[in-house]
Amino acid sequence: MSTAGKVIKCKAAVAWEPNKPMVIEEIEVAPPQANEVRIKIVATGVCHTDLYHLFEGMHKDGFPAVLGHEGAGIVESVGPGVTEFQPGDKVIPLFISQCRECRFCKNPKTNQCEKGWASDSPDVMALAESRFTCKGKKVLQFMGTSTFSEYTVMNQMAVAKIDPAAPLDKVCLLGCGVCTGYGAAVNTAKVEPGSTCAVFGLGAVGLAAVMGCKAAGAKRIIAVDINPDKFEKAKVFGATEFVNPKDHNKPINEVLAEMTGGGVDYSLECVGNVAVMRSALESCIKGWGVSVLVGWTDLHDFAARPIQLIAGRTWKGSLFGGFKGKDGIPRMVKAYLDKKVMLDEFITHNMTVDQVNDAIELLKNGKR
Amino acid sequence: MSTAGKVIKCKAAVAWEPNKPMVIEEIEVAPPQANEVRIKIVATGVCHTDLYHLFEGMHKDGFPAVLGHEGAGIVESVGPGVTEFQPGDKVIPLFISQCRECRFCKNPKTNQCEKGWASDSPDVMALAESRFTCKGKKVLQFMGTSTFSEYTVMNQMAVAKIDPAAPLDKVCLLGCGVCTGYGAAVNTAKVEPGSTCAVFGLGAVGLAAVMGCKAAGAKRIIAVDINPDKFEKAKVFGATEFVNPKDHNKPINEVLAEMTGGGVDYSLECVGNVAVMRSALESCIKGWGVSVLVGWTDLHDFAARPIQLIAGRTWKGSLFGGFKGKDGIPRMVKAYLDKKVMLDEFITHNMTVDQVNDAIELLKNGKR
Repeated sequence: MSTAGKVIKCKAAVAWEPNKPMVIEEIEVAPPQANEVRIKIVATGVCHTDLYHLFEGMHKDGFPAVLGHEGAGIVESVGPGVTEFQPGDKVIPLFISQCRECRFCKNPKTNQCEKGWASDSPDVMALAESRFTCKGKKVLQFMGTSTFSEYTVMNQMAVAKIDPAAPLDKVCLLGCGVCTGYGAAVNTAKVEPGSTCAVFGLGAVGLAAVMGCKAAGAKRIIAVDINPDKFEKAKVFGATEFVNPKDHNKPINEVLAEMTGGGVDYSLECVGNVAVMRSALESCIKGWGVSVLVGWTDLHDFAARPIQLIAGRTWKGSLFGGFKGKDGIPRMVKAYLDKKVMLDEFITHNMTVDQVNDAIELLKNGKR
Repeated sequence: MSTAGKVIKCKAAVAWEPNKPMVIEEIEVAPPQANEVRIKIVATGVCHTDLYHLFEGMHKDGFPAVLGHEGAGIVESVGPGVTEFQPGDKVIPLFISQCRECRFCKNPKTNQCEKGWASDSPDVMALAESRFTCKGKKVLQFMGTSTFSEYTVMNQMAVAKIDPAAPLDKVCLLGCGVCTGYGAAVNTAKVEPGSTCAVFGLGAVGLAAVMGCKAAGAKRIIAVDINPDKFEKAKVFGATEFVNPKDHNKPINEVLAEMTGGGVDYSLECVGNVAVMRSALESCIKGWGVSVLVGWTDLHDFAARPIQLIAGRTWKGSLFGGFKGKDGIPRMVKAYLDKKVMLDEFITHNMTVDQVNDAIELLKNGKR
């Protein structure tokens, strides 16, 4: 490869500071170091977590940075010690690593690799580390991935190799949103056949949760959103009923209790709003109802009355749908190729990296 | 029986109004009606839930009432249609019925019988119903049980028949506290062998939770209380370590994280305090930690940051330790007779019904 071992100059969307549009810049991407892989990003989604970093919550010292964590690409070159990957491999970057060695990776109950970027002592490249520079300044990596760049460098423990037949412009969605929602239903809630589910929020994650409930054999899947434009799409993924809380004069949990004779077996909160989290829990049936936090926020506490749990409900949550990335993503890619999982139906717009700010605006306005 | 079919006059502790001591009165107990059983109460425990009704939370229209819900006795007579019981049977009253017919009773995941006193449409005698009168006034039943009386009348679906060899002055504790704590560990948390547990609060429920963790094979059982007088007793039940939050300058979850390399596998909140509920959750390890609400309060919300669950923790709760009463209590009685479950060690004072207010005072002051 002509570029191996050399600095690559390429295009990236650089977030120079919070609350400002990203700027398309030419950046330098250094060669991969030991155990690292340099990846040519072919396609990327935009996710609310990118917005979140940019506009809502993160520390000001997380800039300048290249955002993006839902991508797919091709290995360009590998650093010393990398045996799992070679140039040309199709891959998906993982924002939760899978080192296969820590006590979390060895425990089948969790995907929270101890070496991840979000842990206290990340070995994976985190915010503070990167191989990016721009105009003489170090540019930080976001979530260990930074897919809003034509090239990125990642630790090999945070890369999943996928089927060479996979279309990267579709399977990139498995890098975050689709696995997050689908896995929350299948892996975290463990939805049972014949059950009744409610999915709160019908963005990509919520739609994927609907798809997960259907795959798990749910009999009724009640899609809840204040934007009725989403209902048509939810139907495509398997929703059987639709409720717009704005159409009712009583709390949504009472509406769902009436529709279901006491509450749903499973509810999935795919918004990231603590009031909705409470509603989702209260919408579950006592005795065995399970509610899962899927949407992300860390600005406020979520809360409920103790009797909600004491009466037998369970409150759970998961990150990336509980999938261990290196194991789970190839399986989901295969399910897509076997037409058991939909991806094309999630895609509303295909845009170039130069249009990343437009994509962010579409996301903010719920037009994806 | 000479008393069958007749009104029985007997002694009972009547709570005439909130926030006042109970009064020992002579009351009239009417004969059992269809599907009801009249029980001579031989022994009863006092539980914080009795105090709660009396002093903290309940509606003023819940008076006058006979409190008490942790008792054991002998069937005196039965009403029409009762085939499961006959006079002389040793029994334990259930504050959660087991009708064996509703969808909750038929579901192995829960003990929340739909016909219970706490459900919206109780068939079991609830606060508003009773066979008690005193001085010409109707006296209400509490939690469907009312064990602070020499005789009580209950629906047969809320009575468990137990081994005739059972000493009633010991097994009465299985009517609430011991099953609640023990079951929260064994049935709700489903503590696994070799795991690390933390029990917050070392009243009878907490001590029983410690015993449950030990029975489930926990390797480390960390007992947490601000009253170090409780530690000696906790050791008897299986606690391996003791932490007094007052001995530390940092939050208890940080202390436990340091002691355990990241947090405990299971935590049980046996206090009924929403701040402790939060600490108990935060004391669990990410990825797979399970925290169970056992203590009762409904005055405040419990709360935490969403990341606590999204990182893979589970928040649960249970009432009466998840035991279906008619099935579970006889099993626990047998475990006691087989010396697999301790009961004698819980008992600090033996008192007569005339001393019930003294017992309540001991309970309030943590001297049990």
